[in-house]
Amino acid sequence: MAVITFYESIMIGIFDSGVGGMTVARAIEQMCPGYPLVYFGDIAKTPYGSKSPDTIKNYSINNTEFLLQHGAELIVIACNSAASTARETLNQQYNVPMLDVITPAVNRAAEISKNGRIGVIGTRATIKSGIYEQGISRQRPKSKVLSQACPLLVPLVEEGWLNKQETKMIIRRYLHSMRSKQIDTLVLGCTHYPLLKHLIGPRIGRRVQLIDSSVEVAKAVHSFLDAHPDSAHRLYNPEKKSRFFVSDLTETAQQLAAKIFGRPIPLEKTNA
Amino acid sequence: MAVITFYESIMIGIFDSGVGGMTVARAIEQMCPGYPLVYFGDIAKTPYGSKSPDTIKNYSINNTEFLLQHGAELIVIACNSAASTARETLNQQYNVPMLDVITPAVNRAAEISKNGRIGVIGTRATIKSGIYEQGISRQRPKSKVLSQACPLLVPLVEEGWLNKQETKMIIRRYLHSMRSKQIDTLVLGCTHYPLLKHLIGPRIGRRVQLIDSSVEVAKAVHSFLDAHPDSAHRLYNPEKKSRFFVSDLTETAQQLAAKIFGRPIPLEKTNA
Repeated sequence: MAVITFYESIMIGIFDSGVGGMTVARAIEQMCPGYPLVYFGDIAKTPYGSKSPDTIKNYSINNTEFLLQHGAELIVIACNSAASTARETLNQQYNVPMLDVITPAVNRAAEISKNGRIGVIGTRATIKSGIYEQGISRQRPKSKVLSQACPLLVPLVEEGWLNKQETKMIIRRYLHSMRSKQIDTLVLGCTHYPLLKHLIGPRIGRRVQLIDSSVEVAKAVHSFLDAHPDSAHRLYNPEKKSRFFVSDLTETAQQLAAKIFGRPIPLEKTNA
Repeated sequence: MAVITFYESIMIGIFDSGVGGMTVARAIEQMCPGYPLVYFGDIAKTPYGSKSPDTIKNYSINNTEFLLQHGAELIVIACNSAASTARETLNQQYNVPMLDVITPAVNRAAEISKNGRIGVIGTRATIKSGIYEQGISRQRPKSKVLSQACPLLVPLVEEGWLNKQETKMIIRRYLHSMRSKQIDTLVLGCTHYPLLKHLIGPRIGRRVQLIDSSVEVAKAVHSFLDAHPDSAHRLYNPEKKSRFFVSDLTETAQQLAAKIFGRPIPLEKTNA
């Protein structure tokens, strides 16, 4: 008699400094249906991008602990600022598979750029860490990476100013110096930026391919599950539902979550 | 033999969500020279203005504890978001004189407006609390208060975009609806806004008087010290120096502090 083993689907833990990482959660939900998610958005301390590496590391440890306590068996660092400053610390400290929002975008950029001139935009913390440059240079030693911190884009997205003239002008200003540098690929190195893709595309130029780090990390999660059959091909358990936790609950966050998912997302407040 | 008693100058504690409250510290330093200050800026969790009242209350209690532990005998709530949501809680919980950045500006607006039509701008938390409207209506029952949340102005100031075209446009957009309402007084209900006074003035109109809440609270501190001779007229002790603590230390914060004071300010990182 053949024995067929069914495993329960593993729970995917995702954390971010706020609601922006929901673009990652949404992409994972679409690419890996049937896997329950546990999300933690650290809204009480958002944003991370303007804070120091030490502070971001401490916050990232807290967030990882929270996800593990809530059953996560795979951790996705959905916050670029956290991934750029805390990834190594977390990898050393926790014995759980961990994926981050940066590596897949780095690999994709190194792979698809034709002329090797790649732009990266992100928060101040992400850009200052130099992690995209280092990663891309490792993957593709002869490439040239141009990076630009765009600290005002997160507040603009969080205000819902997705089509305002001021947002367009600020994007144009940030991209100005990059425009003359013949880049053919631009990494959106912040999970809020996919919501501004429609404004960034025309302003950087049509020949430039945009890389959405949320989509790339979702693909990486999919590949990881495929490569680990004990975690993939598991039995769907409808009892195990996705949960979305936040350290502070605001109306703006609820609206943004609904906008990202295209449906209302019940956010649960926790004191973690 | 006449006995002359000398008291040591009391230490004035000031807290804010970040560096913005330094405009208050600076105004107090100028108006009450010789009094040592202890400042706490909660940069690790900044900004408060987009967070919920419960979270802001918890943070404000932590900040007050920190200042008391560091010798403060008078507390100034320099953050509008904290003053609007946590003032009553702090007053009930602590038996120490407490002044806040809102009350003096409210009194001044009610006093100087000629037509009783008063505008208030501030963060989302401050405006949503309705504290300026309530205060002004109490002081001057027939007045009409028009208020407007301006959530992007804090990030713009923190980026140092004090003269950029985009900043001017965003200010114009925020003030647009107020312009046709014949206000003659506008309260700058956030400690970051005095740094934008030169842009706000021309955009709201010359006939409108701007009230700088930092200056008003410094005047209130001065009056308090005058009215309490046991705390005022004290002996200057050069050993007791002003100290500026922050929960996170960033370059942006150091630059903004230096800009506000017109001299370098040594910020001390604390884990409070």
